Amino acid sequence: MSEKEIPYKIYLREDEIPKTWYNVRADMKNKPAPLIHPGTHKPLSAEEMEPIFCRELCEQELDNDTRFIPIPEEIQDFYKMYRPSPVVRAYCLEKKLDTPAHIYYKFEGNNTSGSHKLNSAIAQAYYAKKQGLKGVTTETGAGQWGTALSMACAYFGLDCKVFMVKVSYEQKPFRREVMRTYGASVTPSPSETTEVGRKILEEFPGTTGSLGCAISEAVEVATHTEGYRYVLGSVLNQVLLHQSVIGVEAKTALDDYGVVPDIIIGCAGGGSNLGGLISPFMGEKLRGEKDYEIIAVEPASCPSFTRGKFTYDFCDTGHVTPLAKMYTLGSEFIPSANHAGGLRFHGMSPVLSQLYDEGYMKAVTAEQTDVFKAATEFARVEGILPAPESSHAIKAAIDEALKCKETGESKNILFGLTGTGYFDMVAYQKFNDGQMEDHIPTDSELEAGFKNIPDTSDVQF
Amino acid sequence: MSEKEIPYKIYLREDEIPKTWYNVRADMKNKPAPLIHPGTHKPLSAEEMEPIFCRELCEQELDNDTRFIPIPEEIQDFYKMYRPSPVVRAYCLEKKLDTPAHIYYKFEGNNTSGSHKLNSAIAQAYYAKKQGLKGVTTETGAGQWGTALSMACAYFGLDCKVFMVKVSYEQKPFRREVMRTYGASVTPSPSETTEVGRKILEEFPGTTGSLGCAISEAVEVATHTEGYRYVLGSVLNQVLLHQSVIGVEAKTALDDYGVVPDIIIGCAGGGSNLGGLISPFMGEKLRGEKDYEIIAVEPASCPSFTRGKFTYDFCDTGHVTPLAKMYTLGSEFIPSANHAGGLRFHGMSPVLSQLYDEGYMKAVTAEQTDVFKAATEFARVEGILPAPESSHAIKAAIDEALKCKETGESKNILFGLTGTGYFDMVAYQKFNDGQMEDHIPTDSELEAGFKNIPDTSDVQF
Repeated sequence: MSEKEIPYKIYLREDEIPKTWYNVRADMKNKPAPLIHPGTHKPLSAEEMEPIFCRELCEQELDNDTRFIPIPEEIQDFYKMYRPSPVVRAYCLEKKLDTPAHIYYKFEGNNTSGSHKLNSAIAQAYYAKKQGLKGVTTETGAGQWGTALSMACAYFGLDCKVFMVKVSYEQKPFRREVMRTYGASVTPSPSETTEVGRKILEEFPGTTGSLGCAISEAVEVATHTEGYRYVLGSVLNQVLLHQSVIGVEAKTALDDYGVVPDIIIGCAGGGSNLGGLISPFMGEKLRGEKDYEIIAVEPASCPSFTRGKFTYDFCDTGHVTPLAKMYTLGSEFIPSANHAGGLRFHGMSPVLSQLYDEGYMKAVTAEQTDVFKAATEFARVEGILPAPESSHAIKAAIDEALKCKETGESKNILFGLTGTGYFDMVAYQKFNDGQMEDHIPTDSELEAGFKNIPDTSDVQF
Repeated sequence: MSEKEIPYKIYLREDEIPKTWYNVRADMKNKPAPLIHPGTHKPLSAEEMEPIFCRELCEQELDNDTRFIPIPEEIQDFYKMYRPSPVVRAYCLEKKLDTPAHIYYKFEGNNTSGSHKLNSAIAQAYYAKKQGLKGVTTETGAGQWGTALSMACAYFGLDCKVFMVKVSYEQKPFRREVMRTYGASVTPSPSETTEVGRKILEEFPGTTGSLGCAISEAVEVATHTEGYRYVLGSVLNQVLLHQSVIGVEAKTALDDYGVVPDIIIGCAGGGSNLGGLISPFMGEKLRGEKDYEIIAVEPASCPSFTRGKFTYDFCDTGHVTPLAKMYTLGSEFIPSANHAGGLRFHGMSPVLSQLYDEGYMKAVTAEQTDVFKAATEFARVEGILPAPESSHAIKAAIDEALKCKETGESKNILFGLTGTGYFDMVAYQKFNDGQMEDHIPTDSELEAGFKNIPDTSDVQF
């Protein structure tokens, strides 16, 4: 088939920004397992979720059937400020690698939050505003989600309380200041301001915090403060739904040029980016219309898919959240402090976990020195300085392109470039100075993590 | 006239990226005064410039007649990686200000250098490569130019030696690491590695450096190292020429929608952004075809246009450069260290200086607390975290929009949003903490600066 000449960047028109999100759960024969109550082990109803999450988001969380969910106009308007994001043809990287493969990436970093997180942040802030709430609480690790939520809350005039993992709070003061510039309050976690925080501090006096701790604190504040709810930037079904805007745009752009990706690659921490990117493609695959090779890339230091267990577990360290059925390393698993970016969450999206379990996608791991090597190679030819998280996908895309060089195949490779690395220069500096290393957990370290997974053998699904 | 509905972002197609630069000097009846030799006070010939600058760049520096200068294909290819940049309609800011004015901004921050500087960096690196040079030297202050040049040199495989003003080198380690990631060597200036650096250190032992010092060092290394030339990110005619890509794109985009700007605003340090943005508009104005109100915004702490002298002066502290006729505060003028961004250069582009002197544009100043207030207001509604430099233009655009609110006029305001502020969070933090202040030079401080301007009363033009 003769292709239209493909530009460096395929931009959709503003009127081509999706008007509906794509809910891949509608295409799944085996739906993702529901969240369950940690005491009763019964599926959480919308009513039980509502003290934690905004009303309409609870509905989205539970809706396994509606394939196209309309994007409210107010959210569409906000999307217009930074979307559509381009699909970029990596001509310069292809040339550098001397590969017959065609490499494309969907670039989500061209907004001030620096990542795709804004796609869901604005949706969650919108529903909170619509419900008449005063504000929202959340946690942030590397800081991309917190920044995105601060921006979204500033836009709608909502208060925003961010619990930032203490080690990041101290090592990433600039991230903190961006959030403050957007009017958010930022508290290092664990803090003395919550019961769960005080308890964790008592038990582990010198702790520098973890995402799991920060989630516990944010949930506690949301459920104990009038007019507040908790919002989360990954893992949940609702988040993957909002992030489907990435995949729908990418598919529309590639369709316009008659390009069908053979391989689709995304980094995977909690799964928000990968789940969003693959949504409409996975829909076709689930319906048996097309076949795509789908690859999740996770850090070797936090290998939920490749070395975790598929079972119900807590989403947080303090055990204040519902249980989700997912690939997990145990809620007390904390990747070694020398890990440079996000992707440090112990669990994985229930939607992706189900799909992975059924063999609809595969997973690979990457070590961070290799990841930064790929990042630097990419930056020098493609111009964009990628986030460490995104660079996991770059590493895998380069590997696939080099395989094509061996075999002579000119496969179409699409990967998600989720964000930029401007706030990760401490990690780049370590790499530049040759001082980066990775810690791959030993089997016994993983076993210790698994011990904290609750017994849910009574659960039926 | 009925307008087409204007999208949030007007993106040109990739094939609409300009294929020629616009040389506004061709439209000037009174050409900018030539660079002169500091010893003989005679205009510098191309031959005399060639030990400092690349050959073709010398020609561009001297060409006052060719209106359209072709952009080499290799540069066009690089432009495709991050251009065209959008013209954004600031709908949300208009609504927030409740103004009848229509506000547009040309956003140049969506590339890893974080600013428009890449437009000229890639051109200068290209000509250096074409000439068969090994590398280039330069200085950087806030770091945007150094980053842009590092990226450009990485792309063409050139060595890149950056002298970074010492205070920035220490306060902006992340900027330094971005440059290193792109393979540049970064030396804090003044350094012991050059004669002029050693001399400055001897005279001022505790100095934290200045742009003028760093220029002196970079020029010395370029002229004393086989296969190297010096490149500069602002002030020069060639730089304004390359930056005309901003203005040509902006004009094409606005023309597509029948929008004629009444007011065009840009921040002005050395003049690269403003000169580029206004080029084709100023061409029409000089030819008497259209009238535009053109406003340069400079920091109150470094008021070259509004309080400087229009005369020949050195471009650097060490007095190793040729003399340029420009608005200047004297080559030893250094704005107070508490100034937060770039725009700290003592002089101004000779092209803009000539146009300003003849009344084709006006200039205003802004104090930095007001600038950061405008920046924060803008960020919260438009989503983009602006660089302090760019925020000077935002401040003036808001002022003009508020004037329209008073008069009820719906003027079209276009301003240049030159870059993003990710590496300026120390300054934002000061503002967030209420600790930002500005130092406006007193008349006697300015008089002291003027004393260092050389006597060029013998010069005829």
